Amino acid sequence: MHAIGVDIGGTKIAVGVVDESGRILAKVRRETTADDVASIDRAIADACNELTQEHQVGAIGLAAAGFVSPDRTSVQFAPNIAWREYPLAERVAKLVEVDVPVVVENDANAAGWAEFRFGAGRAATDMIMLTVGTGLGGAVVVDRELVRGKWGVAAEVGHMRVVPGGHYCGCGHEGCWEQYASGSALVRDARQAAIAQPARARHLLELAGGDAESIAGPHVTEAAQAGDPLALELLATLGRWIGEGAASVAALLDPELFVIGGGVGAAGDLLLLPVRKAYQAQLSALGHRPEAQIELAEHGNEAGIVGAADLARR
Amino acid sequence: MHAIGVDIGGTKIAVGVVDESGRILAKVRRETTADDVASIDRAIADACNELTQEHQVGAIGLAAAGFVSPDRTSVQFAPNIAWREYPLAERVAKLVEVDVPVVVENDANAAGWAEFRFGAGRAATDMIMLTVGTGLGGAVVVDRELVRGKWGVAAEVGHMRVVPGGHYCGCGHEGCWEQYASGSALVRDARQAAIAQPARARHLLELAGGDAESIAGPHVTEAAQAGDPLALELLATLGRWIGEGAASVAALLDPELFVIGGGVGAAGDLLLLPVRKAYQAQLSALGHRPEAQIELAEHGNEAGIVGAADLARR
Amino acid sequence: MHAIGVDIGGTKIAVGVVDESGRILAKVRRETTADDVASIDRAIADACNELTQEHQVGAIGLAAAGFVSPDRTSVQFAPNIAWREYPLAERVAKLVEVDVPVVVENDANAAGWAEFRFGAGRAATDMIMLTVGTGLGGAVVVDRELVRGKWGVAAEVGHMRVVPGGHYCGCGHEGCWEQYASGSALVRDARQAAIAQPARARHLLELAGGDAESIAGPHVTEAAQAGDPLALELLATLGRWIGEGAASVAALLDPELFVIGGGVGAAGDLLLLPVRKAYQAQLSALGHRPEAQIELAEHGNEAGIVGAADLARR
Amino acid sequence: MHAIGVDIGGTKIAVGVVDESGRILAKVRRETTADDVASIDRAIADACNELTQEHQVGAIGLAAAGFVSPDRTSVQFAPNIAWREYPLAERVAKLVEVDVPVVVENDANAAGWAEFRFGAGRAATDMIMLTVGTGLGGAVVVDRELVRGKWGVAAEVGHMRVVPGGHYCGCGHEGCWEQYASGSALVRDARQAAIAQPARARHLLELAGGDAESIAGPHVTEAAQAGDPLALELLATLGRWIGEGAASVAALLDPELFVIGGGVGAAGDLLLLPVRKAYQAQLSALGHRPEAQIELAEHGNEAGIVGAADLARR
Repeated sequence: MHAIGVDIGGTKIAVGVVDESGRILAKVRRETTADDVASIDRAIADACNELTQEHQVGAIGLAAAGFVSPDRTSVQFAPNIAWREYPLAERVAKLVEVDVPVVVENDANAAGWAEFRFGAGRAATDMIMLTVGTGLGGAVVVDRELVRGKWGVAAEVGHMRVVPGGHYCGCGHEGCWEQYASGSALVRDARQAAIAQPARARHLLELAGGDAESIAGPHVTEAAQAGDPLALELLATLGRWIGEGAASVAALLDPELFVIGGGVGAAGDLLLLPVRKAYQAQLSALGHRPEAQIELAEHGNEAGIVGAADLARR
Repeated sequence: MHAIGVDIGGTKIAVGVVDESGRILAKVRRETTADDVASIDRAIADACNELTQEHQVGAIGLAAAGFVSPDRTSVQFAPNIAWREYPLAERVAKLVEVDVPVVVENDANAAGWAEFRFGAGRAATDMIMLTVGTGLGGAVVVDRELVRGKWGVAAEVGHMRVVPGGHYCGCGHEGCWEQYASGSALVRDARQAAIAQPARARHLLELAGGDAESIAGPHVTEAAQAGDPLALELLATLGRWIGEGAASVAALLDPELFVIGGGVGAAGDLLLLPVRKAYQAQLSALGHRPEAQIELAEHGNEAGIVGAADLARR
Repeated sequence: MHAIGVDIGGTKIAVGVVDESGRILAKVRRETTADDVASIDRAIADACNELTQEHQVGAIGLAAAGFVSPDRTSVQFAPNIAWREYPLAERVAKLVEVDVPVVVENDANAAGWAEFRFGAGRAATDMIMLTVGTGLGGAVVVDRELVRGKWGVAAEVGHMRVVPGGHYCGCGHEGCWEQYASGSALVRDARQAAIAQPARARHLLELAGGDAESIAGPHVTEAAQAGDPLALELLATLGRWIGEGAASVAALLDPELFVIGGGVGAAGDLLLLPVRKAYQAQLSALGHRPEAQIELAEHGNEAGIVGAADLARR
Repeated sequence: MHAIGVDIGGTKIAVGVVDESGRILAKVRRETTADDVASIDRAIADACNELTQEHQVGAIGLAAAGFVSPDRTSVQFAPNIAWREYPLAERVAKLVEVDVPVVVENDANAAGWAEFRFGAGRAATDMIMLTVGTGLGGAVVVDRELVRGKWGVAAEVGHMRVVPGGHYCGCGHEGCWEQYASGSALVRDARQAAIAQPARARHLLELAGGDAESIAGPHVTEAAQAGDPLALELLATLGRWIGEGAASVAALLDPELFVIGGGVGAAGDLLLLPVRKAYQAQLSALGHRPEAQIELAEHGNEAGIVGAADLARR
């Protein structure tokens, strides 16, 4: 059975028809306005209706950034779109021309599920996805099932506390993991290094046109790939925080696999090796237990579409 | 169906027949020697054989402190008994006179399962057990299923890291949660306070016969119940660490209930209120999500027997 | 001998004639522009010239926020005024009509010196001043001498690191003491509490007109004085960080007295008692050594004038 | 003027005649018993009397591990010898045959003073000594004067707190600097690595005869000099903690020089370069201030004798 997956961003939506092997057969996009939730409903439905002209689908899955109700019908709260206890599935179902189940999933869960079913985790039964982007998102798969939690808000890994009294987080707490293990943390530290020690940061500054505040993640990756010591150190620090936190997650859930997604994956082994090293160094009972693998995600931006579609047909 | 549960300690075993409502119908004990694994097999079987004289049982569950294989047949490693990749279920099955399934479970998982099925968690679907004793153990129930992990070693909550560069743990790492949230931590801090500030610790010292090194957990509880400020502060600190760590666990798993077990539960609300306060203060997205309940365990020492028996018949 | 003390702020200067007992006999003010350093020179000189019409003085001391050269002639760097290796003493000396020595001192050092000579430290020989304001400044007196350091930048206590991986500081580092022990930290935590737990912060929010972002330090003090539990807790947390850091300073310098200055002093014992408690709890070798006193500053805003004048005549 | 310096250890004393350039002209040793303080007095006097047969001296300085009164007459408390408010100078003065001043100094202060006067700090005016041995000791020189503190117990650098909730220290507190920046910390971490990751620690284990618990500091240095990655990492970690803590000390005292003493100095640049790197990375206002030098001590075990003698004649 084919299904439609919808990845709903703040200003645009991407909609695709996904087959049972996780391939996207067709895809359309729509622009949206974050403040106008009814227009988002319409844009989603419109895109679905366009695709169902040519494709037969059995379900529609909507991937939304926010807290999704455990019955997969509503978005309870979203940081970037004006949804508050919003019955998104029902609203979209009313506007689409086909009569198929419509379900909502958290976008990080959807992306993680795509990796689990069709990507780096396809051979695994117990997997943790860590999406290292602006923040640190995740998904948890236990015994082949996605863990949504009692109220649908599980896998908020970025808000596990890793440093008491640590960096303030946008969530209002201190020391959240995503303040140390995210692309934003990488860029923050890179800019800081460039200001405090410009000589060491010469290479990074050149790539950024001379301005510390213009340094972005890809500059760090590029400099690291050229062997720049500061950039390598920045990636190693990021990797260390990812790996050390992963070891705490493993103490709780004993997964067989961690999948690292997000833009920083472009750094490849320059990131992955420090992650693995820190994971091993911190893993409780190392030597008395098998160790989880740590791999890069295989899907990119389309993971949300694929995962939402696949979850919808289950 | 009745089942037998066996709680295997370092120097003794407790064995009981458990009915489907979690009641123990009969119970026997045996002394054992930690170094002699064959004698432990025999003691277990002997106790089971005694009980099956008068009770019909359909399964036997063995609760062992250690890493249990995910197929529930073997103990991979145990800290206090000389089991190394030891096929405990098979060895015991050969020695018992009834022909029923024999399974091994981690003891903290068994105790947590007893709470989930017949105790504080009986109405829950998603529960975390935190057993605050010498160390900090736990059990994880997701969507009514016990989470054992890929290799059987999930729920080692005590070894999640909560302080980078923090207290050394017996496990060889720094900053493990159990170094802050355990009876041992409580006693360590109480003794330290008594040495550094004997005037503040006068009440505690009196209860302990004047010797700081003799202060034990129940002294702290007793002093706190009598209103002693230092003892109250020690319990509040313990509670804070439990609650703050629980908030990190909740970020990952979104449970509906935490159950706090172990001897410190004797302190009741003097412990529980600080736990809840810290949990709320640290919980990510407070106000946008329901909050998990935090309650004391209802079962005491017999939880291992009850949980092992119940898991064996599943 | 009387001396003039000048307290140079970003937008105004306060100038006073100070007698040998630390009293201000006359005082004038001038508005200034932070970007125009020559105009600041002229404003200082103009005020001095006005005062020397009626008062005979033997020295002029200039208190400046910034790094002052150890020979007390120049400001090497200032955060708020455009001084860079600026020969401030010479420039002012050229413009004043009396022929007396002109020296520059760091403003926190000047304020600390005023406390040492004429305030809470007048009976002490070894004193640490901690000025808990927007940031955390200080002054160090060892054996009756102000410690300026090799290059004039000693006593930057606010930038001692107290939490590895802690809050980012404006200085570019993590975990600086002033991120935990300053009025800014108090307000930050109060606002955060008001957002995360509005019910607990009801009293604070009322005082601030209902808006978390309007909460200021005096609101916390006022609420605490009325017995509000959250406000008391916020002051206790601030006090704990001050006291714990002071214990580290004491390990290094073994002073007989800490003097706490800055606006938070308005909270009196509500701040001071937690400071002392934390200091005792953290002090190394408590019981084998006398303990430093911890007292509030006696001088207010005029401490800079008094201290600069007195340092100038030495 | 020549002077005698006495270095009083737990089980032996070393006594030397020191000339004005810091050279030891003659030296004798005596065995002692830590429990019998009178016998220590006699052993000191006996050794002094032997040396004064052939050398004319003007003063005697006694270097003692412990808290020394600020008037340099008594040991208030010592961890390893049974001195409690013990008038050591007077007792020794009564037993020596020459009539010269006898003074007591803290041993770390004496060693630091030797470096300041005749060693790595001979050209400096403001110096911090950090002695990285079993613990972390130190000495503080401000403007050419030794800082003893109000009650004689300054420069206990090892008990500045660097990690809240960090490793327990023998002093009873958590997170003391010496738990991270000492030879003991190096060995602890090396042994731990050897237990947790024996493959990585193969080289270290070989040097220690195969037993993790036999790993000692010199093994780490030797392995590092042979290029062993784990040993290099262990030294880098030690160096990082030294350097980061030194930056906090510099924020307070702005010294021109740090001198690193103790056995770990044998590692040379393998330790020193990480110290300097971490110092720079953590130093507040880097770029707006000169940076202190960080050098190895030049004196070895005899620094206590030399420093005590020189302090006695001042």
